Amino acid sequence: MDAKVDRPLNELDATEIAGKIAAGETTCEAVVRDCIARIDARDGVVKAWVNFDHNLALEQARVLDRAATRGPLHGVPVGLKDTIDTFDMPTEMGSLIYRGYRPRSDASCVALLRRAGAIILGKTATCEFAGSAPPLTINPHNAAHTPGGSSSGSAAAVADCMVPAALGTQTGGSILRPSSFCGIFGYKPTFNTINTMGTWPAAASIDTIGWLARSIDDIEVLTTVLRGQVPQRPRELDSAPRIGVWRTDLWDTAQPETKAAVEEAANRLGKAGAAVRDIDLPGAFTGLHVVARAAIGFYERAACMAFAWDQKREMLSPQMCRYIENGQKISRNEYIAGLRRLDECRALLANVFDTFDVLLVPCVPGEAPKGLGATGDPSMQAIWTALHTPTMTLPTHRGPNNLPVGIQLVGQRYDDDRLFACARWVWQKIGAPELVGVARSQ
Amino acid sequence: MDAKVDRPLNELDATEIAGKIAAGETTCEAVVRDCIARIDARDGVVKAWVNFDHNLALEQARVLDRAATRGPLHGVPVGLKDTIDTFDMPTEMGSLIYRGYRPRSDASCVALLRRAGAIILGKTATCEFAGSAPPLTINPHNAAHTPGGSSSGSAAAVADCMVPAALGTQTGGSILRPSSFCGIFGYKPTFNTINTMGTWPAAASIDTIGWLARSIDDIEVLTTVLRGQVPQRPRELDSAPRIGVWRTDLWDTAQPETKAAVEEAANRLGKAGAAVRDIDLPGAFTGLHVVARAAIGFYERAACMAFAWDQKREMLSPQMCRYIENGQKISRNEYIAGLRRLDECRALLANVFDTFDVLLVPCVPGEAPKGLGATGDPSMQAIWTALHTPTMTLPTHRGPNNLPVGIQLVGQRYDDDRLFACARWVWQKIGAPELVGVARSQ
Repeated sequence: MDAKVDRPLNELDATEIAGKIAAGETTCEAVVRDCIARIDARDGVVKAWVNFDHNLALEQARVLDRAATRGPLHGVPVGLKDTIDTFDMPTEMGSLIYRGYRPRSDASCVALLRRAGAIILGKTATCEFAGSAPPLTINPHNAAHTPGGSSSGSAAAVADCMVPAALGTQTGGSILRPSSFCGIFGYKPTFNTINTMGTWPAAASIDTIGWLARSIDDIEVLTTVLRGQVPQRPRELDSAPRIGVWRTDLWDTAQPETKAAVEEAANRLGKAGAAVRDIDLPGAFTGLHVVARAAIGFYERAACMAFAWDQKREMLSPQMCRYIENGQKISRNEYIAGLRRLDECRALLANVFDTFDVLLVPCVPGEAPKGLGATGDPSMQAIWTALHTPTMTLPTHRGPNNLPVGIQLVGQRYDDDRLFACARWVWQKIGAPELVGVARSQ
Repeated sequence: MDAKVDRPLNELDATEIAGKIAAGETTCEAVVRDCIARIDARDGVVKAWVNFDHNLALEQARVLDRAATRGPLHGVPVGLKDTIDTFDMPTEMGSLIYRGYRPRSDASCVALLRRAGAIILGKTATCEFAGSAPPLTINPHNAAHTPGGSSSGSAAAVADCMVPAALGTQTGGSILRPSSFCGIFGYKPTFNTINTMGTWPAAASIDTIGWLARSIDDIEVLTTVLRGQVPQRPRELDSAPRIGVWRTDLWDTAQPETKAAVEEAANRLGKAGAAVRDIDLPGAFTGLHVVARAAIGFYERAACMAFAWDQKREMLSPQMCRYIENGQKISRNEYIAGLRRLDECRALLANVFDTFDVLLVPCVPGEAPKGLGATGDPSMQAIWTALHTPTMTLPTHRGPNNLPVGIQLVGQRYDDDRLFACARWVWQKIGAPELVGVARSQ
């Protein structure tokens, strides 16, 4: 008999769902039905989904109910940002240009999810081409506020318990920011360790696929699957972590709730036994968010959009057109200087992680801003995307409007497992201001 | 009056064609007609093209004949490896899986070619997914020999004067090797300086778009266009270049014609005034071709092919299946060790270019091997692809069967312009054993 009999299945974490199905306590179909019920009840307001086919989702569930266990996500519904290709449903990139587009293949990350038994529940709303022109999605905590972007629908759907986990992509701050704004966990792996085949390129030298969920366990099980590994016991820290607190050169732009979150977390973690020390990084790191956004982001965006610009310009948003025009103004020399600067900073950062297990840094300027016309400032997240480091946001705090404010933990390149171990330690000591996601069963 | 009245337009270089059209001495349509005539006459044997629509090519030419000059390639026909997306013709990846596939957008490189006035003449034959299972293409110099691969059709079409230039992609040695085997110029730019949006990923951390042509001028004008720059006067060297000769750890695997080509070139260039010095690179460079091919190439290939492997395996060649199986055996730790090793070697190599303008290295083990079942050994080219350096082959020599053998020049990362200046200097001193490409008007 189920101890939590009153809790609908859509509110469970991915690992709980997989466990229940493996134990024969529920079925893939029952899980999908509860997700569908939540979406039917809420998505008229939340608008997290752009392609969602009840029948296709149920069909996948029924096939899995008849099959032997495929992997650690057997029967777990997952949402996909609609810039990620699926062979069996449209992939529209948040753009009229791709209206009704049906790729011939799944993206590699989707194939790996299916290999592990996941149900592709549907496609979530995205900013146009993973850029800045937002979809209609609202923040599930307050419909007047942005959920962040560009993985807007993935964050809102997970936070609203429509699906336990979703994939997003991050070129600036497109996973971490919406995760922080929506009060869930968001993770961007080390660059180039998760294959990007079949995902829309925004700026290929920094584009990274990541995932959003309501628990660290779920972030880790998805990581295992998307690396193509077999599940293993999560790594534990031998001792309390060494945490470097870097307030960044953007500290003065942070609102009080962000400053409070970082300071309170640093303080609490120090008291809990972590070796917490303030650090400052060399001058090469100053203004790195501008390099990331302009010299790299704008330049590569303009290159990626060459066809759309020349042949479909009337179907692009004014935001995208400005973005491309900005990119066209950046010279090749500026671009290459930006690439070299990032190379330099990546080498410098390697030394920092000889001394620290993880960095604690601000994630967002503050709570999700009011209004749906923009998705907030990516600067604080974009630094780490450009540096190729693994990074994670934990939904530890709330702001003056009772909206979520996450902290950000940054790990060493390729050492994502140490980042996870630190994140678990931190989460045990701080925990959530309340349940992760929106108030459930609302 | 045309001084070379007997020479069909398809035998001219891209820059010559653009110049004649700009001067009103010929039309885009006349150029395309001569290319079509050559293809009609020869492609039954050469089999360089997989998608070639006379009418679509002529239609583009007529539009350009009515239009103002678009750019430096106005009216110049270009071939595209069939792993590069085109919105107006199929893109089939050399695979049954993509039979008849019509992408919604051009690849960015294609959009830039069109922006500059190029005519997309058609799609050239490629190994399956830019891998190792060859197409039917023969070497235009000798039909019993491979043209190399995976950009087989691009090399054969250019060498056979069906088109003045073509795009290819290189993950191991897929541009340099067929260029060397077919006796033309092949160039792979610095990694990540030419946008790869819309090209099939083989191993995204090293995949690079490059081009093949019958002159250095043409290589340079395509470079300008594909960087999105306006044409400028080619950079000249202030003095004779400093050339480092590295025979690599593969020297013992080279056939006499390759050793002779490198030694003869080094000797001749030294006599011509270059500061030529033998060099050796640190131990970290030993066996780098294996890291490139296995730890990086196989691993990323297996990741890219996850969907095809799970859902379309019966449509994959045995070669591709072995390739993927090899990749699946490589652990994440081996992969990351490979990425770190390449990072280390890239940093070491930067110092080498403080002392040398360019490296002279072997390009291929020897002449194109007999038989069409395999495309030759990519090891000598793959080192440089993995190191992200710009690299170029020059059709300077011939082997015992009178088949071409190119030398390879390698530049510093991001300093492709210096590589070009050196290549011009070298070409002036050495030149071709005869006309570049096959004997013309044959």
